[in-house]
Amino acid sequence: MPIVKIVSEKNAKNKVKKIFEDIKKKRKINKVPNFWKTIASDPDTLERTWTSLQQVMKKGSLDELTKELIYVAVSMTNSCEYCIRSHTLAAKKKGMNDKMLKELIAVVAMANETNRLVESYQVDVDNFLK
Amino acid sequence: MPIVKIVSEKNAKNKVKKIFEDIKKKRKINKVPNFWKTIASDPDTLERTWTSLQQVMKKGSLDELTKELIYVAVSMTNSCEYCIRSHTLAAKKKGMNDKMLKELIAVVAMANETNRLVESYQVDVDNFLK
Amino acid sequence: MPIVKIVSEKNAKNKVKKIFEDIKKKRKINKVPNFWKTIASDPDTLERTWTSLQQVMKKGSLDELTKELIYVAVSMTNSCEYCIRSHTLAAKKKGMNDKMLKELIAVVAMANETNRLVESYQVDVDNFLK
Amino acid sequence: MPIVKIVSEKNAKNKVKKIFEDIKKKRKINKVPNFWKTIASDPDTLERTWTSLQQVMKKGSLDELTKELIYVAVSMTNSCEYCIRSHTLAAKKKGMNDKMLKELIAVVAMANETNRLVESYQVDVDNFLK
Amino acid sequence: MPIVKIVSEKNAKNKVKKIFEDIKKKRKINKVPNFWKTIASDPDTLERTWTSLQQVMKKGSLDELTKELIYVAVSMTNSCEYCIRSHTLAAKKKGMNDKMLKELIAVVAMANETNRLVESYQVDVDNFLK
Amino acid sequence: MPIVKIVSEKNAKNKVKKIFEDIKKKRKINKVPNFWKTIASDPDTLERTWTSLQQVMKKGSLDELTKELIYVAVSMTNSCEYCIRSHTLAAKKKGMNDKMLKELIAVVAMANETNRLVESYQVDVDNFLK
Repeated sequence: MPIVKIVSEKNAKNKVKKIFEDIKKKRKINKVPNFWKTIASDPDTLERTWTSLQQVMKKGSLDELTKELIYVAVSMTNSCEYCIRSHTLAAKKKGMNDKMLKELIAVVAMANETNRLVESYQVDVDNFLK
Repeated sequence: MPIVKIVSEKNAKNKVKKIFEDIKKKRKINKVPNFWKTIASDPDTLERTWTSLQQVMKKGSLDELTKELIYVAVSMTNSCEYCIRSHTLAAKKKGMNDKMLKELIAVVAMANETNRLVESYQVDVDNFLK
Repeated sequence: MPIVKIVSEKNAKNKVKKIFEDIKKKRKINKVPNFWKTIASDPDTLERTWTSLQQVMKKGSLDELTKELIYVAVSMTNSCEYCIRSHTLAAKKKGMNDKMLKELIAVVAMANETNRLVESYQVDVDNFLK
Repeated sequence: MPIVKIVSEKNAKNKVKKIFEDIKKKRKINKVPNFWKTIASDPDTLERTWTSLQQVMKKGSLDELTKELIYVAVSMTNSCEYCIRSHTLAAKKKGMNDKMLKELIAVVAMANETNRLVESYQVDVDNFLK
Repeated sequence: MPIVKIVSEKNAKNKVKKIFEDIKKKRKINKVPNFWKTIASDPDTLERTWTSLQQVMKKGSLDELTKELIYVAVSMTNSCEYCIRSHTLAAKKKGMNDKMLKELIAVVAMANETNRLVESYQVDVDNFLK
Repeated sequence: MPIVKIVSEKNAKNKVKKIFEDIKKKRKINKVPNFWKTIASDPDTLERTWTSLQQVMKKGSLDELTKELIYVAVSMTNSCEYCIRSHTLAAKKKGMNDKMLKELIAVVAMANETNRLVESYQVDVDNFLK
């Protein structure tokens, strides 16, 4: 249970209501997910997050699928269940299949292992990397 | 400075020597990077890590570039400088340009922010995500 | 379920019993929370933690509310649900309202984002900061 | 050394130049700190971060000093040196003295300890906290 | 619920079936734990992990119990519930009693506290430590 | 450079001076390490930390060496350089040799990998583990 009162779709007003409509339209879904209903308790955070996410996650030099994969990788490293589940779904909608998901997880786990090898041994940065 | 004595190329013997040669050949480099020379102080870890990394990072359903981007994203989340620098270079060799790197960083930073929004508010997992 | 047998109030003896009474009295509560009943399985840790927490969290140059806000911020960054919930409650008892809680969360999330921007880009420390 | 080319003040153009001027004016400083010059390599991230930070860190129900203390607490938990140094300075400008800084650190360290006690023992959330 | 379809023992085939048998035999258990059934959805990861874990966790200069204690300590620092529970059990099978578990937790919590004291104060590495 | 003025041995007074003497005597060293000189800027934190560390790290059901190994494992997971270096030295004084150190690192790295496999796949806790 969240630590604040969430904003249901029918209680949404003004700015929050407008953003809820925009989320449903752009994401092609008919219900607003809990993440948005929860942070809607702070309308400024809702607006800032929705605007920033659209800007950051839109197709650029990296395509949308690659960006979702990166998002999932970070969420896995941070052990954020909600984030893993919601962005895994988002990645699937953009073309990730099960084989890709498993390869993604293998890379995430391996990177976490070698990151600790580096830090544990206190490996020196090579001159050619500086 | 690493916390163990590293294995220089000229002191490498047997299994370690063979793996050093393999690394240089497959990576098309003429010097063994510090990471490998450092973990070579534990030949089993050197062998296991080299074998595993090749398996995990090779082209599969995800291409090699995408895997490197994921690797970098994890390393950034864990603040591992050596890992960020070495895998950024690896990603560049596989086609990442500066624009892609900046978009990658924007996604990593944003994901770290929303991960904390989720955990701070203790957002409930939606039924459709379970 | 905790990984050790917790100490119920009625089974508490000697040092543990005395600390349980002290916790209830100083915190003005009539039941000992699970945190204390769980770590009471190790009486030395119970005693050390209770003593340290009182010393660290008491009014000093920072008031008690500010200290609780800092505590919650750390717990959110570490994604510790129990800690978030218990110290959010503690902060409310000391004057935190819902608006303050939401602002706290916005700062925590933003700091986690910019921390990663700094580490991802490997920003150099300015001379005036050294 | 950062992993991208930073934007010096004299090379700043258009949007970046304008934001640099705004930073110096609002922060009452005569040189743009490395953080901003580094993320300026990605003008969209520069703009989004500057806008968001101003919104999040401005006086609200929490005063500006309290927000800086929270920012520092997160940065300490994440071990981000640049962030610790720059926001410690920011907090000092807003009134933090050395005694407050030491108390802040004591709370941050203690919270990190008890967070791990909770997770290690797998303490159950009390009913009154749900 | 895991984010992929797990492999039940009766659906296991070929390499996966063989590894499942090996796990049960070597661990002296009659059911394959969820961890292995879940990662079995990616047979290469299953094989690599099972092989690596046996190599890393076998008696060497450190005995098996000490290795399990270290494993638990890492899992507690990362707040991984499954890992804490499964490796606490493994450690008990190898001789850890409740008193040892509580001392382990006290060290883990204390180390997390002093790690943050060091990073918060930005303590300089002594010359004799370099 | 630390973010506060450290207390040199010759400037130490009263409680701080006494603790400095105690550290040198009990640790059999003739100079106070930077960690203690830095946190001495906050005498209460110095005293609390010194007292707690002695209690937590003393021989109990776990011997002193095992406790140091656990301490190092946590410090490696948190990437705390000072803590890795100082407690590696402490462990060596208590009997850790280079082979043990390398095995310790292998376990730490592996645990960090499997922790992320568990969290990435969202593995269900087995009934026999609850």
